[in-house]
Amino acid sequence: MTYCVGLRLDRGLVFAADTRTNAGLDNIATFKKLRVFEKKGDRVIVVLSAGNLAITQAVISLLEEKIREQANERPTIMTVDTMFQVARLVGEAVREVRDIDGDALTASSESFSVSMILGGQIGNERPRLFQIYSAGNFIEASDDTPFFQIGEHKYGKPILDRVTRADMSLGDAAKLVLISFDSTLRSNLSVGMPIDLLLYNTDTLEVLRQTRIEQDDPYFHRLSTGWSDALRDAFSKMEPFDV
Amino acid sequence: MTYCVGLRLDRGLVFAADTRTNAGLDNIATFKKLRVFEKKGDRVIVVLSAGNLAITQAVISLLEEKIREQANERPTIMTVDTMFQVARLVGEAVREVRDIDGDALTASSESFSVSMILGGQIGNERPRLFQIYSAGNFIEASDDTPFFQIGEHKYGKPILDRVTRADMSLGDAAKLVLISFDSTLRSNLSVGMPIDLLLYNTDTLEVLRQTRIEQDDPYFHRLSTGWSDALRDAFSKMEPFDV
Repeated sequence: MTYCVGLRLDRGLVFAADTRTNAGLDNIATFKKLRVFEKKGDRVIVVLSAGNLAITQAVISLLEEKIREQANERPTIMTVDTMFQVARLVGEAVREVRDIDGDALTASSESFSVSMILGGQIGNERPRLFQIYSAGNFIEASDDTPFFQIGEHKYGKPILDRVTRADMSLGDAAKLVLISFDSTLRSNLSVGMPIDLLLYNTDTLEVLRQTRIEQDDPYFHRLSTGWSDALRDAFSKMEPFDV
Repeated sequence: MTYCVGLRLDRGLVFAADTRTNAGLDNIATFKKLRVFEKKGDRVIVVLSAGNLAITQAVISLLEEKIREQANERPTIMTVDTMFQVARLVGEAVREVRDIDGDALTASSESFSVSMILGGQIGNERPRLFQIYSAGNFIEASDDTPFFQIGEHKYGKPILDRVTRADMSLGDAAKLVLISFDSTLRSNLSVGMPIDLLLYNTDTLEVLRQTRIEQDDPYFHRLSTGWSDALRDAFSKMEPFDV
C-alpha cells in the first residue's frame, strides 16, 4: 500500500508521499513515489503515485523518455502550455502501459491498478491539482475539495476534512499533512517512513522546499507525540457523556 | 457498510453500532445491528453485526429460536456457563447459515460475509469480548487490544488507538466511541445515524444503559462540533513546520 496527499491552497501546493512498497509482508522496500519535473521560471510539475510499482515506474519512465526524445516534435509534459494538457499526457502514458502490460497482468490474475496525484503550475496559469485513475482519465481539485489522497487514505482523512482551509499557510499545510501521515503510519504497516514532502509557492515557478522526513526526524517525532498528547487533552476537556 | 465498536474495560463493556444498511446507494434503510440477550443477575450478552444483512439476521434468528426451544435440552447462549461457550454457539450459528445459504450466494456471485462483535458477562466470569469471523471462528480481546471494530473501521481507529485506556470510566468510553463514530459518519455515507449505544458495568449482570443517539441528539451535536473545534485548536498550537 501507499499513502500520498496533495493539497491545492491559495498560497501554493503541498505534496507528501510515503516510500514503502511491499510484495507481501515479508518483502518490503523503499521507493520514491514523489517525482518532480521542474524548469525554473517556466513550470513545476509533481507526480505522486500509488498502486502496482511496476506500472507506476513504467508510467514515469515513459514520461521521462518522451522528454529526452528531443528530436521528436511531439508534445511532452515539459513543453505543453497547461496543466490540463500535462494531465492528459500522464493519462496517455497510463494507457500506453496498460496496452503493453495489461493482458499479461490479467493472465497472472493481477489487476492493472495505478492512481496518481498530479499538481503544479505552468507559466501564468494558476496552480492546479489532479487525480488520475487507472483508466487514464482524471478529475481536478476545486475550491470545494482542495485535496486529494491516494492509497491508504482513510485513517488520515478525518483530520484533513476538519482542518484544511484554502487560506492556510504552506507551513501549516505541511504540519497538517504530517499529522495525517502520523495517523496512517500508526494504523497501517504497509505505509512506512521516510516521507517525501514538497512545498510549492504560487507563482514562483520553482520548488520552494523538498525534503525527506526520516524515521528519526526530531520535528516529526515531536509532532507525533505532541499530537497524541493534544488529542488526549482535548478529549478530556470535552463534555462528559452522562451515564 | 456498517460501523460497530466494542470496548472491554476494567469497569465494564461499551458497545456501539450504527443502523444504516444499504443495497446500493439508492436503497438505504435503518436496521438494528445491536442485540442484547439479558437475564438479570445471571448474564448479559451483546452481539453487534456487520456484513450481509440477510446473513446477520439469520444468525440472530437462529440463536433466538434455539433459546425458545425450551423442550430441547441442547445448550443455548442463555444456558451455557462461559462467554467462550457463547462465542462457540454464535460461531456454530454462522456456520449453520453458511450451510443453508452459502451455495446459493456463491451461485449469485455474492460472498458469504459476516462479522460480529460479541461481548458480555456470565456469573462470576470476568466480562469478555470476542470478534467472530465469517468462518465462525473467533478471537478474544486482551489487555493489549481492548477493543474490536467491524465494518468501516479505519476513519474512527486513530482516536481509539490514542485514547483508549483499560482504566477509563464508562462515560469516557461512551464519549470516545461517539467521537470515533463522528469521524466515520463525516467520511462515509454508508454509515448512518442513529447510533445504538449500550453500557455494561462489570459484575452487575444487567445492562447499565441502552440508548439510541438520534440524528438531532443535542449532546452528539455538541460533541461533534466541539471536537472539530478542539482539533483545530490543538492543531494551531502544535509546533509549526519550519518552511
